[in-house]
Amino acid sequence: MSKIYNLGIIGYGGMAGNHRRQLEQQNVRVKLKGVFDIDESRLEAAKEQGYIAYSSKEELLNDKEIDIVLVATTNETHRDLAIEALRAGKHVICEKPVTMTSAELEDIIAVSKECGKIFTIDQNRRYNRDFINVWRTIDSGVIGKPYIIESRVEGSRGMPAGWRTNKAQGGGMMFDWGVHLIDQIMYMNKTKVTSVYCKMYSINYAEVDDNFRLVMTFEDGLTSQIEISTNNFITHPRFYVLGTEGTMVVTDWDGTGKVVKKLCDDEGWGTEIKKVKAGPTKTMAPRDPSTVKEIILTEPKDVTDNLDPVYEQLVNAIEGSPLVITAQQALRVVRVMEAAFLSSEKNEVIKTDI
Amino acid sequence: MSKIYNLGIIGYGGMAGNHRRQLEQQNVRVKLKGVFDIDESRLEAAKEQGYIAYSSKEELLNDKEIDIVLVATTNETHRDLAIEALRAGKHVICEKPVTMTSAELEDIIAVSKECGKIFTIDQNRRYNRDFINVWRTIDSGVIGKPYIIESRVEGSRGMPAGWRTNKAQGGGMMFDWGVHLIDQIMYMNKTKVTSVYCKMYSINYAEVDDNFRLVMTFEDGLTSQIEISTNNFITHPRFYVLGTEGTMVVTDWDGTGKVVKKLCDDEGWGTEIKKVKAGPTKTMAPRDPSTVKEIILTEPKDVTDNLDPVYEQLVNAIEGSPLVITAQQALRVVRVMEAAFLSSEKNEVIKTDI
Repeated sequence: MSKIYNLGIIGYGGMAGNHRRQLEQQNVRVKLKGVFDIDESRLEAAKEQGYIAYSSKEELLNDKEIDIVLVATTNETHRDLAIEALRAGKHVICEKPVTMTSAELEDIIAVSKECGKIFTIDQNRRYNRDFINVWRTIDSGVIGKPYIIESRVEGSRGMPAGWRTNKAQGGGMMFDWGVHLIDQIMYMNKTKVTSVYCKMYSINYAEVDDNFRLVMTFEDGLTSQIEISTNNFITHPRFYVLGTEGTMVVTDWDGTGKVVKKLCDDEGWGTEIKKVKAGPTKTMAPRDPSTVKEIILTEPKDVTDNLDPVYEQLVNAIEGSPLVITAQQALRVVRVMEAAFLSSEKNEVIKTDI
Repeated sequence: MSKIYNLGIIGYGGMAGNHRRQLEQQNVRVKLKGVFDIDESRLEAAKEQGYIAYSSKEELLNDKEIDIVLVATTNETHRDLAIEALRAGKHVICEKPVTMTSAELEDIIAVSKECGKIFTIDQNRRYNRDFINVWRTIDSGVIGKPYIIESRVEGSRGMPAGWRTNKAQGGGMMFDWGVHLIDQIMYMNKTKVTSVYCKMYSINYAEVDDNFRLVMTFEDGLTSQIEISTNNFITHPRFYVLGTEGTMVVTDWDGTGKVVKKLCDDEGWGTEIKKVKAGPTKTMAPRDPSTVKEIILTEPKDVTDNLDPVYEQLVNAIEGSPLVITAQQALRVVRVMEAAFLSSEKNEVIKTDI
């Protein structure tokens, strides 16, 4: 019989609740045993849900039955808590962003090596339907070589109240959503990030970025544009990809969208200027529909947006398989975010070797 | 009775044909008299259309009845031809881009002053329905202060054959369409351009930019993103504007689109994380529809996409009114384009004072 691993959670806020619900419903070999939080009311809630409410983080870390610790506290505390849990002999899964600086993450990596324990990060959006459809479609070759990938998350309800509007605790949209969208692109395109340009905006929240627009250039020529807004009442598609042989749009979170693929050049009327809707133009006139093919993208039915893959891979790594979501990958993402903050502050392109 | 002004055209290609057709149909006080072109077949065509085909540009410039010269040749020749026409005592209207460098335009400006003749540029897209609707909607205040304006022109038919794929003659999308979209934004927002970032792509044409993405930052905080593609099979909206109080989209060339305006904040469920389509999120959940208002933008019926305003303003300026499309404005646009080329070449943000 396969071993079941006991999970202890430090920081029992909203995101930890999401882990709890998913672990209750899903069929992974990880079982929540107990939690610690500095907020008494959260401990009470955990007790009511049937979990142990540890009286201190030391008590949780000293529980020999706890195999894995989920660090789900505010972002400025991840480094110290992860290191403490590793030193207590636990494997660790950390909420994103793993840390706010690469130096903090390098400390964790060193301790993880020293202790011989697994350290992974909840980059669950690698396994979401929208992104999976983008990757599969690019991999199929149908749009040729992709040269621009636009990835957007847009909301109109502003930032949530609480620590996410607080700079010192790692608030702002770069740490909240940017980290996911950067991780997705860097997981798909493994070449180096050679430069980063970012503009951050504080439209309604003075301390943090509540909107940002990030341009990453990859060594193979790909440009990635990542845009997050919290003050946005009409949305763009979730993904938009320009390839040499066609264009892809993934409209929504479920992965639905379409590809329009070039079948042949459209030499219809050569260099002549036509009066079309755009005015007199050669370039922007509509194509002969017989020169393109439309392919509908449907929801990938074999993919569910949940945390299963993250926990499964963690368990497999504990049992000797290579880890999938690694600290080294997360380190590259953190370095891109550091470059993005610097770029926005200085209004400069940051040349990188990430 | 109002004076009618005679026009002579140098360079009787596609764009000149567009001027000819519009002047034949429309009710401005400018009448085409004759043309010169180095291509014999174009001179033949002009004769058949009932116009004088001058045997040399000198003959055209020496015709005392010609009041205005339209320079509609390839871009690298604009400077010399405009100067020659001004020195011959003509008023001059030049096709866009006015010149390929600011130095060339400064030469024209000096001669225009010396000769006391009007020099203007065919930036006709200031008077198009799409742009007019954007401007009017921003001016109405309905979306609050705009902080990002996205302006896109996207086609899938590649570049036209001929000189527009030739760098030395001023080919490429920056000079073809970029000049219009930059001019529109700088006409609407009169504050200084403080920085320029641009990525140019040569996807299917080695010598010139057949795609580009330009970010301009204005002194008042506005960001403008201008994107042109010629290898694009699914289009974005023509204009997209984020304002502090709402979002505007102008979908198409006719100015149709919509505004979604915030009526009040949506504090529905505070800081709670909800499982929505986006996954567990506080920020990206849908709004209560009662907290926003949708306003449909219809085609502005008082606007026609033609060259009338450009010629009317030229005639008015000849008769003493202030010129509307000035060389000084065009000089700012050329300087932004110079910064864009430099930015793309060096992969740097160019700090400007334009």
